Amino acid sequence: MRESEGVVKVLLEEKEIPDCWYNIQADMPELPPPPLNSATRQPVSPEDLTAVFPLGLIEQEISQERWIDIPGEVLDVYRLWRPTPLYRARRLEKALKTPAQIYYKYEGVSPAGSHKPNTAVAQAFYNKKAGIKKITTETGAGQWGTALSIACCFFGLECKVYMVRVSYDQKPYRRSFMEAYGAKVIPSPSPYTEAGRRVLEKDPNSLGSLGIAISEAMEEAINNKDTNYSLGSVLNHVLLHQSIIGLEAKAQMEKIGVYPDVVIGCHGGGSNFAGIAFPFLKDRFEGKNVRAVAVEPLACPTLTKGAYLYDYGDTAGFTPLLKMYTLGHDFVPPGIHAGGLRYHGAAPLVSKLYHDGYIEAKAYGQLEVFKSLVFFARNEGILPAPESAHAIHAAIIEAEEAREKGDERVILFNLSGHGHFDLTAYEAYLNNELDNVTYSQAMVAKSLETVPKIEV
Amino acid sequence: MRESEGVVKVLLEEKEIPDCWYNIQADMPELPPPPLNSATRQPVSPEDLTAVFPLGLIEQEISQERWIDIPGEVLDVYRLWRPTPLYRARRLEKALKTPAQIYYKYEGVSPAGSHKPNTAVAQAFYNKKAGIKKITTETGAGQWGTALSIACCFFGLECKVYMVRVSYDQKPYRRSFMEAYGAKVIPSPSPYTEAGRRVLEKDPNSLGSLGIAISEAMEEAINNKDTNYSLGSVLNHVLLHQSIIGLEAKAQMEKIGVYPDVVIGCHGGGSNFAGIAFPFLKDRFEGKNVRAVAVEPLACPTLTKGAYLYDYGDTAGFTPLLKMYTLGHDFVPPGIHAGGLRYHGAAPLVSKLYHDGYIEAKAYGQLEVFKSLVFFARNEGILPAPESAHAIHAAIIEAEEAREKGDERVILFNLSGHGHFDLTAYEAYLNNELDNVTYSQAMVAKSLETVPKIEV
Repeated sequence: MRESEGVVKVLLEEKEIPDCWYNIQADMPELPPPPLNSATRQPVSPEDLTAVFPLGLIEQEISQERWIDIPGEVLDVYRLWRPTPLYRARRLEKALKTPAQIYYKYEGVSPAGSHKPNTAVAQAFYNKKAGIKKITTETGAGQWGTALSIACCFFGLECKVYMVRVSYDQKPYRRSFMEAYGAKVIPSPSPYTEAGRRVLEKDPNSLGSLGIAISEAMEEAINNKDTNYSLGSVLNHVLLHQSIIGLEAKAQMEKIGVYPDVVIGCHGGGSNFAGIAFPFLKDRFEGKNVRAVAVEPLACPTLTKGAYLYDYGDTAGFTPLLKMYTLGHDFVPPGIHAGGLRYHGAAPLVSKLYHDGYIEAKAYGQLEVFKSLVFFARNEGILPAPESAHAIHAAIIEAEEAREKGDERVILFNLSGHGHFDLTAYEAYLNNELDNVTYSQAMVAKSLETVPKIEV
Repeated sequence: MRESEGVVKVLLEEKEIPDCWYNIQADMPELPPPPLNSATRQPVSPEDLTAVFPLGLIEQEISQERWIDIPGEVLDVYRLWRPTPLYRARRLEKALKTPAQIYYKYEGVSPAGSHKPNTAVAQAFYNKKAGIKKITTETGAGQWGTALSIACCFFGLECKVYMVRVSYDQKPYRRSFMEAYGAKVIPSPSPYTEAGRRVLEKDPNSLGSLGIAISEAMEEAINNKDTNYSLGSVLNHVLLHQSIIGLEAKAQMEKIGVYPDVVIGCHGGGSNFAGIAFPFLKDRFEGKNVRAVAVEPLACPTLTKGAYLYDYGDTAGFTPLLKMYTLGHDFVPPGIHAGGLRYHGAAPLVSKLYHDGYIEAKAYGQLEVFKSLVFFARNEGILPAPESAHAIHAAIIEAEEAREKGDERVILFNLSGHGHFDLTAYEAYLNNELDNVTYSQAMVAKSLETVPKIEV
């Protein structure tokens, strides 16, 4: 007996990997206001960025070309795991008794286990091309550091990862993962940078923070001519590289003759959401009826509860000022297991589109998200990352709504990574130790007060 | 610019999943002698097995039909991750400067991260069909327990995993993984079985062993009418289910017009090696020139240093007597990170074929294997399981030999799983704490003395 239902996986051949990234800046009805130099408060010039980024990426950051060629060397690495599969979640649909069709794009098949290598590989390539020898970056939970370690290994670059001290101590597996690819992993704050020493002088036992780690990584890049810095989300070029997710998903859905009514991604800095959604928003700008939903944790509700202001990308105020939804750059979200979504800001491109009404946003609590995560795992087999589970939860709510309304809506979400390194989170869930951690309105109000007042 | 070299991934469509398993018993020039009832020392009858196995599996255990239909319900689960990709390791070839072509079949894309679900799903299905409510099993490092947990979850069966105490305490992530799929995980020895209580009485702090865990799981299955027991390797029906690996690989290689000169798999109980190799051995029986190489750890060299005797499958002497290569059922291999290869015996089918000269075997040390593992990861991206790395190491040796001889041999190996739950092993390797752990000849001689003397 053969299959009892239709197809569950839609695959593309290697030769069907898109050969261009999609740049949404070409099609947005209105562009976001430019980033500002934090000292002069004038628009950042390309020259301002050359201390830490290679020209290839700076060009992409400001480009308004619709399609940007993916270099062959990048494609050669992409095809180690790309095209990634598109799944129809037939078992989940059945369990939900919904007339909706649920599809998910699975990025967890990459060697790093998430969508992050899509941009890490491109960034390593452009840095290598520019003659750079070493890339520095920060990592919290370790997803981004792992992706960059692998990418640097492929292009023969040194990789130095400043890993937030508390994660460095708590997640030795993630550290070993990066080291297996030859990366140097340093607990942050470290004694090797001015920024690190300043923190350690005040508190020798500091647990560190992403903000401090960014400052250390940037300082090393600024002070060394052959060293650059790399960021895993937020910036335009990062979102550009991630567009390959949505481009592939479109081609896969076209193959089976369906088109989504709603496209869903979880939202931290914005790159995984933008990756799946932007190629569909292109159609929306052309009049197509497709919704894009960004899903964030209730503990860090940047889009749903933040303000649209110029703010710093990091805690220390080291980066240019970006016009974005923000909870204030010194907002410290409560501890949740979806560490990749604990970011105070949002990509300027996502922020602008949300502000102009092209994107919806939802915020959900940790416990309800974990319930959906386990429900998904038990039906579809894959153990998702807690971050990705936010998208799952929103997709399930859409499917339940479809059931109540009796409509056959087509739902697409991005399953951005697996949860193999998040099992302490499952343990906590299974031991009934999780709740719907929420943000503090008072804390947001307070941290928003420290955002510089800028009128443009 | 598009791809600079030929294809690296060979994919099959969902509809190309083989719809039969291959049963090598139909084609072996000579069958292995039958298992013996340990009390009567007469050949085991199907009835002897009904206490712990469903009829569907018992039939497969003794069948000599060449092709056995894969039920639609099993195919429906297989297609959540199958067909798995076949990779050409172009980066590895280049790094080795070899004229050889290296291909690997990647089973790590399954939800459990290894080849184990190929049989877990089939076993769960036949048990469900037989009206069984619960399956018990043992697990050491957790790979097999995870696979069975997921399979039982899909078929609505209870799953109870007796997990070796020391692993239960050291690998809480593996435990949480199983529990996320609803399995009940019990540290073994436990107070819930006669076998467990007997051990605990002598030593309340016993760390447990696979032998004890098997005894506990079997005892529960024997004493409960609606409960069966499940084994993850060694038995004929397990090897049958794993044949899907080699069948797919053959179809994939055919697609690009190549045929392997040598097929390699790591060897613990024998199921992952048999899975990739048996469909090619079929061709060898028909005169084709193809080598099959089983790779084991120097710490537990069952095929290369064991004796071909009737012995028990477990430490406690609870199972029927199987004619197999064995180091003696009470041989305790030194601790190595490739826990899945620490088995004193070998599948009777593999043993017979090895004894008759159709299979080669190699044994390598832990340190040299880890060197190859990291070399592979840094070139191909994927972080392999320490077990699978034995196959990688043998493939690299073949490729180096091909370079020296200037031949273009085609190498195929089974990358049976990823190493996401083995990062303590990498840490040890990176800290220079590993060596080429070897077995003790004296210990083997001693444990072989306890093997029952049987003439057949």
